[in-house]
Amino acid sequence: MYRGLEAAPTREIAVRNVKAVIEYDGTDFCGFQKQSSKRTVQGDLEAAIQAVFGERIQVVGAGRTDAGVHATGQVVNFHAPDPIPTENLVTVINGRLSPDIRVKRCEEAPETFHARRSASSRTYVYTILNRREPSAILGRYAWHIMQPLDPDVMEAAASCFVGTKDFASFGMPYRPGGSTVRYVAGIAVRRRKDAILFVIKANAFLRGMARAIAGTIVEVGQGKRSVEDIPVILEARDRQAAGVTAPPQGLCLTKVEY
Amino acid sequence: MYRGLEAAPTREIAVRNVKAVIEYDGTDFCGFQKQSSKRTVQGDLEAAIQAVFGERIQVVGAGRTDAGVHATGQVVNFHAPDPIPTENLVTVINGRLSPDIRVKRCEEAPETFHARRSASSRTYVYTILNRREPSAILGRYAWHIMQPLDPDVMEAAASCFVGTKDFASFGMPYRPGGSTVRYVAGIAVRRRKDAILFVIKANAFLRGMARAIAGTIVEVGQGKRSVEDIPVILEARDRQAAGVTAPPQGLCLTKVEY
Repeated sequence: MYRGLEAAPTREIAVRNVKAVIEYDGTDFCGFQKQSSKRTVQGDLEAAIQAVFGERIQVVGAGRTDAGVHATGQVVNFHAPDPIPTENLVTVINGRLSPDIRVKRCEEAPETFHARRSASSRTYVYTILNRREPSAILGRYAWHIMQPLDPDVMEAAASCFVGTKDFASFGMPYRPGGSTVRYVAGIAVRRRKDAILFVIKANAFLRGMARAIAGTIVEVGQGKRSVEDIPVILEARDRQAAGVTAPPQGLCLTKVEY
Repeated sequence: MYRGLEAAPTREIAVRNVKAVIEYDGTDFCGFQKQSSKRTVQGDLEAAIQAVFGERIQVVGAGRTDAGVHATGQVVNFHAPDPIPTENLVTVINGRLSPDIRVKRCEEAPETFHARRSASSRTYVYTILNRREPSAILGRYAWHIMQPLDPDVMEAAASCFVGTKDFASFGMPYRPGGSTVRYVAGIAVRRRKDAILFVIKANAFLRGMARAIAGTIVEVGQGKRSVEDIPVILEARDRQAAGVTAPPQGLCLTKVEY
């Protein structure tokens, strides 16, 4: 192709903004965000995309999941040069990834689309395996709690988190000095056989917020705290006031809305 | 205690026969049966039990699952010396095992109980993820087939396997020269959202039999073979006559009956 000075087609014209939905088993990842010399979801994705396109391309993720946290509905975007049709990208990128991370679907997004900044909500599911017997398979995706929990008081505790509140007691902003106010659209507590699931939807989450909320609701379900303690904890704006951080393997980013 | 020659208590008196139900994620195991220098379920269990009791104790398993095959209801037995109460064994043995293998429950069994020889049936479930989208998490426990399968003809094909038949076309006996006749009590084909499950119960299985049956039923569901081919394949008594061996990660030993 003609690459003369005057009529050179600029690099940008041939570039698409690709939106992709990603699933991963977080067990063997040190979280989403790239870190030197550690295996991360962003690092694996960028390496696969570089292998496909032959150049370094930055991947932006909607949710910065912690080490060990899973995702079935993580959304990313990246600017890819033209040659490969969008409908073939799923197969060619998956061919460069290990089986614990999969691209589920790809589509072309508007140039202004940004997986993190454009997101209007994130939904996480926290799973508790609440029975005596341990499980090698379910234990990979759940917090195993042997003592029976009371789902009714947990549901009451969960409802205290709904609304626009200062969640400083439940996490830190990713940006130092950033706001700790978030809007929690809803928390549902569901029982499914031996499992208890919290489905938490918010505009955005502080670092550690989903797991601190899950850990605090569990302490209510164990009778260590009462439902009435939740507003007091929120009021304290102090991470020490809240309950334990629930372990990462129970958490899964299931949906991002735009 | 007195250990004189005449009245020495024999070793056997203080030994219990322990029956345990075991679950494992087979992904990182080279199968159940012990092999030198490879990680196996039996090897890990025997190492954990040796660490607990301070002596080498052989573990017998009901089903010799292949590399990559999972189990939620494997049964084993072993002869353990007295000091630790049976009800505490689950916790102490699990404390010596990695999280991808768990003892679910232990009980004392009659002295004659043998996990393999006493078993009257084994039930395996084979799972197919039948949708376009790949899955990092479900793909660990299922065979991903993108093309739609026809569950009705698969159900008809499955019913051809039921009864006492020579399964030489579907596997080899574990003992060279052993019989290839087995009794298949039933095969159910179930659809659950995007998944198709085969539940296969038999008195015993030949090596590779569950996966060869699953692979052959899938070929019927893909239209590569017809239901009428199944009796012909059985009649051939030739492994080459049957379909592909379904991949191991879709298979799970769910139940052993006595």
